[in-house]
Amino acid sequence: MAGDKMMAGRFVGSTDPIMEMLSASITVDQRLSEVDIQGSMAYAKALEKAGILSKTELEKILSGLEKISEEWSKGVFGVIPTDEDIHTANERRLKELIGDVAGKLHTGRSRNDQVWTESFFFSFCIPPLPQEIDVILPGYTHLQKAQPIRWSQFLLSHAVALTRDSERLGEIKKRINVLPLGSGALAGNPLEIDRELLRSELDFASISLNSMDAVSERDFVVELLSVATLLMIHLSKMAEDLIIYSTSEFGFLTLSDTYCSGSSLMPQKKNPDSLELIRSKAGRVFGRLAAILMVLKGLPSTYNKDLQEDKEAVFDVVDTLNAVLQVATGVISTLQINKESMEKALSPEILSSDLALYLVHKGMPFRQAHIAAGKAVHLAETKGITINNLSLEDLKSISPLFGSDVAQVFSVVSSVEQYTAAGGTAKSSVSAQIEQLRELLKRLKEQA
Amino acid sequence: MAGDKMMAGRFVGSTDPIMEMLSASITVDQRLSEVDIQGSMAYAKALEKAGILSKTELEKILSGLEKISEEWSKGVFGVIPTDEDIHTANERRLKELIGDVAGKLHTGRSRNDQVWTESFFFSFCIPPLPQEIDVILPGYTHLQKAQPIRWSQFLLSHAVALTRDSERLGEIKKRINVLPLGSGALAGNPLEIDRELLRSELDFASISLNSMDAVSERDFVVELLSVATLLMIHLSKMAEDLIIYSTSEFGFLTLSDTYCSGSSLMPQKKNPDSLELIRSKAGRVFGRLAAILMVLKGLPSTYNKDLQEDKEAVFDVVDTLNAVLQVATGVISTLQINKESMEKALSPEILSSDLALYLVHKGMPFRQAHIAAGKAVHLAETKGITINNLSLEDLKSISPLFGSDVAQVFSVVSSVEQYTAAGGTAKSSVSAQIEQLRELLKRLKEQA
Amino acid sequence: MAGDKMMAGRFVGSTDPIMEMLSASITVDQRLSEVDIQGSMAYAKALEKAGILSKTELEKILSGLEKISEEWSKGVFGVIPTDEDIHTANERRLKELIGDVAGKLHTGRSRNDQVWTESFFFSFCIPPLPQEIDVILPGYTHLQKAQPIRWSQFLLSHAVALTRDSERLGEIKKRINVLPLGSGALAGNPLEIDRELLRSELDFASISLNSMDAVSERDFVVELLSVATLLMIHLSKMAEDLIIYSTSEFGFLTLSDTYCSGSSLMPQKKNPDSLELIRSKAGRVFGRLAAILMVLKGLPSTYNKDLQEDKEAVFDVVDTLNAVLQVATGVISTLQINKESMEKALSPEILSSDLALYLVHKGMPFRQAHIAAGKAVHLAETKGITINNLSLEDLKSISPLFGSDVAQVFSVVSSVEQYTAAGGTAKSSVSAQIEQLRELLKRLKEQA
Amino acid sequence: MAGDKMMAGRFVGSTDPIMEMLSASITVDQRLSEVDIQGSMAYAKALEKAGILSKTELEKILSGLEKISEEWSKGVFGVIPTDEDIHTANERRLKELIGDVAGKLHTGRSRNDQVWTESFFFSFCIPPLPQEIDVILPGYTHLQKAQPIRWSQFLLSHAVALTRDSERLGEIKKRINVLPLGSGALAGNPLEIDRELLRSELDFASISLNSMDAVSERDFVVELLSVATLLMIHLSKMAEDLIIYSTSEFGFLTLSDTYCSGSSLMPQKKNPDSLELIRSKAGRVFGRLAAILMVLKGLPSTYNKDLQEDKEAVFDVVDTLNAVLQVATGVISTLQINKESMEKALSPEILSSDLALYLVHKGMPFRQAHIAAGKAVHLAETKGITINNLSLEDLKSISPLFGSDVAQVFSVVSSVEQYTAAGGTAKSSVSAQIEQLRELLKRLKEQA
Repeated sequence: MAGDKMMAGRFVGSTDPIMEMLSASITVDQRLSEVDIQGSMAYAKALEKAGILSKTELEKILSGLEKISEEWSKGVFGVIPTDEDIHTANERRLKELIGDVAGKLHTGRSRNDQVWTESFFFSFCIPPLPQEIDVILPGYTHLQKAQPIRWSQFLLSHAVALTRDSERLGEIKKRINVLPLGSGALAGNPLEIDRELLRSELDFASISLNSMDAVSERDFVVELLSVATLLMIHLSKMAEDLIIYSTSEFGFLTLSDTYCSGSSLMPQKKNPDSLELIRSKAGRVFGRLAAILMVLKGLPSTYNKDLQEDKEAVFDVVDTLNAVLQVATGVISTLQINKESMEKALSPEILSSDLALYLVHKGMPFRQAHIAAGKAVHLAETKGITINNLSLEDLKSISPLFGSDVAQVFSVVSSVEQYTAAGGTAKSSVSAQIEQLRELLKRLKEQA
Repeated sequence: MAGDKMMAGRFVGSTDPIMEMLSASITVDQRLSEVDIQGSMAYAKALEKAGILSKTELEKILSGLEKISEEWSKGVFGVIPTDEDIHTANERRLKELIGDVAGKLHTGRSRNDQVWTESFFFSFCIPPLPQEIDVILPGYTHLQKAQPIRWSQFLLSHAVALTRDSERLGEIKKRINVLPLGSGALAGNPLEIDRELLRSELDFASISLNSMDAVSERDFVVELLSVATLLMIHLSKMAEDLIIYSTSEFGFLTLSDTYCSGSSLMPQKKNPDSLELIRSKAGRVFGRLAAILMVLKGLPSTYNKDLQEDKEAVFDVVDTLNAVLQVATGVISTLQINKESMEKALSPEILSSDLALYLVHKGMPFRQAHIAAGKAVHLAETKGITINNLSLEDLKSISPLFGSDVAQVFSVVSSVEQYTAAGGTAKSSVSAQIEQLRELLKRLKEQA
Repeated sequence: MAGDKMMAGRFVGSTDPIMEMLSASITVDQRLSEVDIQGSMAYAKALEKAGILSKTELEKILSGLEKISEEWSKGVFGVIPTDEDIHTANERRLKELIGDVAGKLHTGRSRNDQVWTESFFFSFCIPPLPQEIDVILPGYTHLQKAQPIRWSQFLLSHAVALTRDSERLGEIKKRINVLPLGSGALAGNPLEIDRELLRSELDFASISLNSMDAVSERDFVVELLSVATLLMIHLSKMAEDLIIYSTSEFGFLTLSDTYCSGSSLMPQKKNPDSLELIRSKAGRVFGRLAAILMVLKGLPSTYNKDLQEDKEAVFDVVDTLNAVLQVATGVISTLQINKESMEKALSPEILSSDLALYLVHKGMPFRQAHIAAGKAVHLAETKGITINNLSLEDLKSISPLFGSDVAQVFSVVSSVEQYTAAGGTAKSSVSAQIEQLRELLKRLKEQA
Repeated sequence: MAGDKMMAGRFVGSTDPIMEMLSASITVDQRLSEVDIQGSMAYAKALEKAGILSKTELEKILSGLEKISEEWSKGVFGVIPTDEDIHTANERRLKELIGDVAGKLHTGRSRNDQVWTESFFFSFCIPPLPQEIDVILPGYTHLQKAQPIRWSQFLLSHAVALTRDSERLGEIKKRINVLPLGSGALAGNPLEIDRELLRSELDFASISLNSMDAVSERDFVVELLSVATLLMIHLSKMAEDLIIYSTSEFGFLTLSDTYCSGSSLMPQKKNPDSLELIRSKAGRVFGRLAAILMVLKGLPSTYNKDLQEDKEAVFDVVDTLNAVLQVATGVISTLQINKESMEKALSPEILSSDLALYLVHKGMPFRQAHIAAGKAVHLAETKGITINNLSLEDLKSISPLFGSDVAQVFSVVSSVEQYTAAGGTAKSSVSAQIEQLRELLKRLKEQA
């Protein structure tokens, strides 16, 4: 009976078409077709074990489901307007293929737990660890030159942040990998189904603890979107750095044409579109998180139709992450470093904390040394010269502790080589970091 | 030359395909095809006025654009992979149709201001004003019974809120209706173009004041999404009320089957899916607002590719609003009121503020009267009876001001008829509100 | 009776102290003391008109309230632990001062509408319009040099955006300026109170239309926070621009020491803390908006305690706006422009769109001219020279349309003077904008 | 020199007072005083090991710091207007107490890493597990009666959700418990400080991997706020359930007066303020998360003043969580269950899925059985009776499979006892869940 909904025993009216549009999640659901079929197969086996299905019925159902799976993979499955979601579509088709016995599959199983079971996945990507270890550039705080650092120290700072994201993604897996199937609509499963069997058949790590919680909790969605948002925040920071470094004013980097666009009006322009897109996607992903959190706030227990917003959000975020990580990988692996511009940017003022340190090593308390070095900066500014061109006399007028050995302070390489403490920018520390990260990544990959 | 980007004079590399995917907004843009063409026609006329195009060239361009418009409307326009957005697609096609003169159309005009010009639209809907004016039900605060009110007072409370939304939508129109065209990439238009002519040709209310602001401000997006979010918050409140009122425990309403769904597991269920969808869309729309705000935060002046997120958000929100308002209209116009359940729910305790008011009219200060009425409630609870069944003796034990005329306090109709002050629930006030709203809506519609 | 709540006629238990902490809004409310007292005075007068208070009682109440007002202004008002909010505190004190007649003040008036009435306010600030009209610097899109612009065009772009914010603040005033008083708890006012009298006494523009809507709508909070967020987004954009322009790499600006901080470690540092604070406050203000929207989502009609979150948000946002606008004004009015750095940054490539325009004026279609100019840029890059140093021969190898008059293209002043269309960067357009803005601001101030 | 900032060697101007207000975080920081002092003590010891401090200097510093610690704990520490934050306050005081040697403490250590180190903490709370195991009430989906469940199953559903929150809080601990101290301003520590010594002295689990990342990453803030938001979302769901269950229409619960408030206008009201406050705080906490994410988006590497927003957010969220969890614990432990109302609500229609199940056990495919049971519901509605009062004849007219044993379907206890699969609402399943949760909590507590 065309126009009827599948479960319409009780209903006498029909449905407002706009309402069907608002409520149908079939377009979003199509990517779940395969997992829906696998879930149905496992459930059919459990029903046979529980004595609800005969061996023959089981076989009929399994071969029907296999046929449907084929139709999806060949792109010939026909969705019709009254299919509410992927589950009703598959079940409607199963009935067409094997008749009424198809109806037995649904026994004691609500659509709610089907949807949930199948949203299990995620992927991640980790940036390369370049080794131009002797390239030195200014490190910035507040976007003002602070101290010299190695380029690899800069890249490592982003790699380390992303490693935490990958760690987090690994951690939420165990909470996603919980089987809700067998929770029914809310009270549980009344057919003495063996949920442990289902779990092992469908390869989940554990089963959900409480049926009412299981049918409506969307923690995995919130966790995945939270972790994704923080990952995107990290990438937006990296993008911001690289956009600034590739301005002609900084001039530290040249991005590959592959990741830039031109201007429709200005022939000389080469715009870092890829990095701007990466930066903007932090907003997009956060918007998805904000949406789902607001949907969940104050919702009563168990299933409410409000929860329908979850899947589109997850799919969009996963697709966005994949695309963004691929582009980020491409941008980083093809960019060219302009060593000369970096060197030119290492103006002597960047070593004024080293000047203070020189005085500390001569025995001056740090606070006083800091003020003395500040006076040197001010004096050089007043004289219109750089601090390394102050005469020893000038310096002695600030503190008698200055001696002729002060000249060696003004070497950028010596400066970075001071930072030998773990995590610092000395060559030994940077090498140790690269080693650590490689081992960490190796371990994480092995766990996957 | 397949694979080349249109404006690639300077570029030597090609583009990472995933990057093209991330960056192409052509799918989202297609709905802008018609406005893009109209904008181009107006701009061509202005160029002819400015002496950049000859009469013949103008005619060629106009007829080419008309042909493209036809192709879109017939659904035969062919988008190809290298079309970055609707503008490059139309211009590529124009060149195919009329040759190199097509290139003249772009003179002094950046893609940036084209996109902006064309996002001008919005629609709104206002709920019906039912008139079952004598239906009385409990009014709630904190979801606890408070005072009797008319059903129409309840509906009016939502209508009044939505009227503010419609007012706000009206107000932002004037800021949307500002023509940015003629701002170039950021410095303005160098061709002595007459922006007033463009404005009147394209029917805008005014022209943008500053070219750098015009090419990148997305105030209209933020304003539209903010207004839409508040509208959705109002609808989520209405949905929450109606969901609760249509539980079997409250039993005030029966929703039409057209706006409900059944359960795949429980045959007796009739779920208010429509209202739950309305409620959830408040989260969706807010997510769009949150996303665009985060995209905009800290972005440098003028165009950055980050801004590409704007159109999908606007389209999604407008589509969502339209669908939600249509469903809300349907739900309200088809629901049935259960007067008996409402009457049954009007338990005498709901009149205890009237009992206090009785004492106030006898001269007792309100705070004391409130305490006295509270004691009556407590005494009735202790005795296991309703307050209207307390004996006069009982009442006199609380205050000697109680007299035999206290009986008339316990009439629900008398109670609501006390609230004659403007905006109250007396019949006269409710009628006046309906009148006011009708006039307001009439005025708003006339302005539209 | 210490420890009792004021309206405890019915209650037999006492309250969990932590609950009192969570629920008490007295600390936040204190700034409402004066408006609470003024509201009470107006309401007392209305009660006297309605025959609920005698002349003598009115006088007693008014003089009691005046005394309380004095105590607040002298800082001697003593709040005690059982004061739930500013209203119960004032009323408790009034009873101490004038005895039981104080209780009459509350007749037919709920705390709910008291709180709402008093949150009426806002202020705004508009940045100065500097006039260093002949200062030219590069304009950027995608943070890449695009075209030369005037410094005043840049400042005007921010001024224009802020003018829209001030316009919006003006518009929401009329919806804030609606008197809810006289709506009771939800059903209206039962004492035939004259709400028009109250309105004119308390100087509101209109009265609320529906009592149920009036006691719980927080549109004004959402609107104020939405408008404030967009204003902060605009300021974050300005801050980002200025932070980048004041790096040593750009070097366009020197911020006043008054708005910078030093580093505890690096003596040479001068950090633009003020601008970073401005930028960060966009996040803070948006967080307040996000919070209140989530609080409101799905809340049932009329008052629920959830609404208590509103006032702290409004106060924090208003305080933040005021401080941020003051600092922004200070930063802008004290910064120094480094004209030489700006000039140095105007490299010839920034004029390549002018090169294309030159060819357009010679009759070449724009798209071809754009490609030709792109080739010139590429040729110059290959030769390691700037485009203005390409020989005429070089240029003619790209297009025969180039002639010796091409030299005049490479003047920055000529370039900006082309943009004479309204809103552009030519001197005449910039002057017109300044004029327009001054008139607009004048008009807005007159309306205030 | 009063009025001077501590590190003002270079600065010649003074600071705008409003700027100091905006920038000072001293009020927020005061709760960090003790951890700041402990951090300083450990750092002093490391400096002595590294040869920067002599034994005598170390002793002087340690005893000075002890004195300051005493002053804080006695409440006699005097903050002065020029103290920028807790660190400068403590150091200024140390200088007053022990003279210039105090300045040595700061060597190679930036304020940035001090702030970060000290935000290490968190606490959590888990709800009680009541055992009124035989109390049965309707379970709802879509707020419509679905199937009978045990009250303990309902409570367990919330307990299980909260257990995931506690698990998450446990997991983020290890990422919080990373020592950033020794990262300097961004390049690392130049004094060959032993970061492992610092780590073990300050009892951290590991040291940060990269100095640039360490000084500015706020992952712990985002993670803590994300986890807190999801916890609050769970509590908002519980609050919503309990608010609805304690309406007079549902009547399942009576909340303790301790967690309710009365109405200033309606003597009979008893409002569930505590639950409404809990619900609303989900919005507040989310607002804090939204704020910090927007602050972080697109921020360049290392420290920027924008990060100052972090601590207030963390403190507010932790305080809110603590108060909310305490109130939630109080509400749950004092509420009274109204068994009679629950029983009355268990209308026979709630068993219609059992009617379908009856037919399944007789061999009918589930889909058909579901339609048959739906017809029974419809027939009963038409006849104006409940489904358990349909005659066997009535039922047989729907399906011949109905027999006289159908009567036993209509027992609520039998119904719940069917759900024996793990996580279901049968007594055995519920008991197993309680056991599981107790063990889980025990384990979590032992780990703490």
